[in-house]
Amino acid sequence: MSVPPIGLHVLLDLYGVEPARLEDCARIEAVLSEAARVAGARVLGARFHPFGPGQGVTGVLLLAESHISIHTWPEHGYAAVDVFMCGEAEAMTAATLIGERLRAGRIDVHECARGLSGERHAG
Amino acid sequence: MSVPPIGLHVLLDLYGVEPARLEDCARIEAVLSEAARVAGARVLGARFHPFGPGQGVTGVLLLAESHISIHTWPEHGYAAVDVFMCGEAEAMTAATLIGERLRAGRIDVHECARGLSGERHAG
Repeated sequence: MSVPPIGLHVLLDLYGVEPARLEDCARIEAVLSEAARVAGARVLGARFHPFGPGQGVTGVLLLAESHISIHTWPEHGYAAVDVFMCGEAEAMTAATLIGERLRAGRIDVHECARGLSGERHAG
Repeated sequence: MSVPPIGLHVLLDLYGVEPARLEDCARIEAVLSEAARVAGARVLGARFHPFGPGQGVTGVLLLAESHISIHTWPEHGYAAVDVFMCGEAEAMTAATLIGERLRAGRIDVHECARGLSGERHAG
């Protein structure tokens, strides 16, 4: 079997985010779309779901290069994001933009190289 | 700030999968839907995209408890899956079922506990 293609999967834990930023579904979708664009990825489709006033948002952008997801908990000032991109698209560029746009107080970043048969954990 | 909720994020690298299984978009969506159901998760929406005959599939199930994604490369017998579930839903149950249904020759599993401020890497 040939070596599978390599993709970079970035998991972001964002803490200390202003709750209002984590409730605004339209703005969150716009931030993820911008992140896909600056990373050089192509959006195939989107699904976003607001859980209601004062509650979180969950959503995914499906990309030709894989996906970006976000799940937010305004009551904890917390968002879980993951950016998975294959090919030439730059996952870390997208991840960095999302952290900046949501103005997180603290960002934990965890990187995983996907699709390597051997040593695959880069973060 | 209170401690954020904990979710389990499972990254699966599936190797040695029969190519035909990785091209069948309808069947892959059915497998992911079954996985969500057995894990006790609720599906909010789905986006799946086949890249064409002999090519891979990319897709995401958006869940009330977060998401399940899959991206396949039939030419390499490889699929990248991630299962992220919060609350009572059982991410590892879903991940195990997906590996079984796709009859992977080898499965690499990487677990990350999400939303912990301190020690958060469980895998």
